[in-house]
Amino acid sequence: LPIDRNLTDRVLAGDRRAVARAISVVEEAGAEGRALIREIFAKTGRAYVIGVTGAPGTGKSTLVDRFVVEARRAQLTAGVLAIDPSSPFTGGAILADRVRMTSHDADPGVFIRSMATRGHLGGLALATGDAALVLDAAGFDIVVIETVGVGQDEVDIVSASDIALVVLVPGAGDDLQAIKAGVMEIADIFVVNKADRDNADDVVHAVSASLALQTFGPGAWAPPIVKTNALSGDGADRLWAEVERFRHRMGPAAGDRRVAWQARHLRNLLAAAFVRRAEAALPPGEFDRLVADVVARTLDPYSAVASIVERV
Amino acid sequence: LPIDRNLTDRVLAGDRRAVARAISVVEEAGAEGRALIREIFAKTGRAYVIGVTGAPGTGKSTLVDRFVVEARRAQLTAGVLAIDPSSPFTGGAILADRVRMTSHDADPGVFIRSMATRGHLGGLALATGDAALVLDAAGFDIVVIETVGVGQDEVDIVSASDIALVVLVPGAGDDLQAIKAGVMEIADIFVVNKADRDNADDVVHAVSASLALQTFGPGAWAPPIVKTNALSGDGADRLWAEVERFRHRMGPAAGDRRVAWQARHLRNLLAAAFVRRAEAALPPGEFDRLVADVVARTLDPYSAVASIVERV
Repeated sequence: LPIDRNLTDRVLAGDRRAVARAISVVEEAGAEGRALIREIFAKTGRAYVIGVTGAPGTGKSTLVDRFVVEARRAQLTAGVLAIDPSSPFTGGAILADRVRMTSHDADPGVFIRSMATRGHLGGLALATGDAALVLDAAGFDIVVIETVGVGQDEVDIVSASDIALVVLVPGAGDDLQAIKAGVMEIADIFVVNKADRDNADDVVHAVSASLALQTFGPGAWAPPIVKTNALSGDGADRLWAEVERFRHRMGPAAGDRRVAWQARHLRNLLAAAFVRRAEAALPPGEFDRLVADVVARTLDPYSAVASIVERV
Repeated sequence: LPIDRNLTDRVLAGDRRAVARAISVVEEAGAEGRALIREIFAKTGRAYVIGVTGAPGTGKSTLVDRFVVEARRAQLTAGVLAIDPSSPFTGGAILADRVRMTSHDADPGVFIRSMATRGHLGGLALATGDAALVLDAAGFDIVVIETVGVGQDEVDIVSASDIALVVLVPGAGDDLQAIKAGVMEIADIFVVNKADRDNADDVVHAVSASLALQTFGPGAWAPPIVKTNALSGDGADRLWAEVERFRHRMGPAAGDRRVAWQARHLRNLLAAAFVRRAEAALPPGEFDRLVADVVARTLDPYSAVASIVERV
C-alpha cells in the first residue's frame, strides 16, 4: 500500500485537518492505518496520556473540559479523545454534554475528537490507542482519553494511560457498582465530582475506607481523593496539581507501566494479524463450512480452531 | 491433558455440583476447560439462550428473578449467568440485589451463577459462552445471561443469545446514554421497568419514535415494548409471553443468528489459539525484547507483529 507521506508529514507538523483525517484512517483499522502508525511511531512517546473514567452521569465530560482549561493555563496543549457510547438509535439529543466542548473551538492548542464505539472485539481499544499516537506525534503535550468505566474495552483503554483518574459521584451506589472490576484497582487519583451535594463526604469516606484496607509500600503512591464541582470549576486546580504531583513522583515507574501495556497491546495486534492471515490462507468458503459444522454440532469449536491452526 | 470423564458425565447428568465445578473450569480458560467443552459440545444447542442487558440501576436482576418464576410456572428449568460488575475493591455491600436470588435456592430447577468480569480482552465473552454451554449440556431449558449493557464484551455476550432483552427505566437520560452503540440495535424486546413511575410513558414513546424511523420488512419482527414493575412482579407474565411469541415466530431465522455468532466466536478462539502458539514458539525472552524495543520507539508495534508472524 502506498503511504501518504503528505498526510504523515502534515500530522508531524501538527496540522489539525491532517490529524482529524489520520484519526479517521486509524479508526478504519485497515492497512492504511497500520502504515501510518509505522511512519509516525518513532515520533511518539512524548505526550502524557491521562485516562479519565467513570459511570454515566458522573460529569466526566465537564470535568475533562475544566481540566483542559488548567492544562492551557500551564501552557500545555491538549488532545482529547472522548469515547462516545451514543448510538445512532438514541440520537444525539441526549448527548448535549458533548456540545460544551465547542468552547475550546477557537483554541489551536486544543483538539477534541469523539471515537465511535463500533467495531470488532478489542477494536475500540486498538483504534483509541492508535488515535492517541496520532495526537502524540502531532505534538500535543497531554492526551486525555475519556471513557465510561464499564466493560473490558474501557479497562484496556485506561490501562494504556500514564495516569488513571476514576470519577465518582455522591449518592450513586449503582454507579459504584457499574465501575468494572479492575477499574477501581488501577485508579491513581479518585475524583469525587458534584462535591457540592450533601453526601459527598460519604463517598470520600467509602473510598478512604477501601484504600485503608490496602497496604502501600514505602515510596508507593497512595491514590488521593480530590473533591470537584465540574460545573462551577471548583477543585479543578487541585486535581491538576495532583496529576502533576503524580507525574513527577512516578517518573521511573511510568516506564514499567508502559512496558506492561505494550506487551498486552502487542498480543492483541498479533491476534488480529493472525486471524487476517488465517482467513486469507483458507480455501474460499472453508471458514463458513467449519462454522456450519459447529452450528450443526458435528464439530466442536475448539476442534475447528485446531484444524485451522494446523492448516495455516 | 487427561479429560475428567467423571466431571463430563456428571455435567451431562445434570449434577449441580459438577455444573458449578465445570463453570469454574471454563472460567479459567485453560486446556482443561477446552477439553471439557469438546466433550460436552455435541450435547448442546438445545437450551434457549436469553440475553438481558441494561444500564446499572434498571432493576435487571430483580426482573430476571421474576422472569425465572414465569419460566418455572411453564415447567421449564432455568440456568442464570449474572455478569457481575462488582469489584473486590467496592466490596459486596452494595451488591445486595444479588442476594435476592437465594429465593430460588431450594429449587433444583434453577441454577444461578455470577461470572467475574476479570481476565483478558474478550475473555469474559468467551468464558460466558462456555459457561452457557455447560448449563445447556446439563439440560437446562433456558439459559438467562444478565449483563450491564455497556462495553464491547457485553454486546458480544448479548449477541450470543437467541433473544435479546434491553431494559430501560423512566427518567434516565444518562442510562440511555450508557447503552452502548450496537445494544439498542440488537434488542428483540424492549422492557421499560419501574413502569409505576410517572414518566414511564415518556420512555415508551421515545423508543416507539425511534422504532418508527426503522423499516421492518414483511414478516420481520418489530420489537415490542413491555412495561414491567419487577419489584411488584407486574408485567412479568406479559414479558414471558412476548419471549415465547418471539421464539415461535423466529424459529428459522434463529439459525442464521447462531451462524453469525458462531463465526465471530470462532475468530475469537482462533486469535487466542494463535497467540498461545506464537508465544510458545518464540525463543525465551524474545517477546519481551520486542516489547522493550517498541517502548524505546526503536521498533513500531506493527513491524514487531510482522516479525513474529514471519518467524512462527
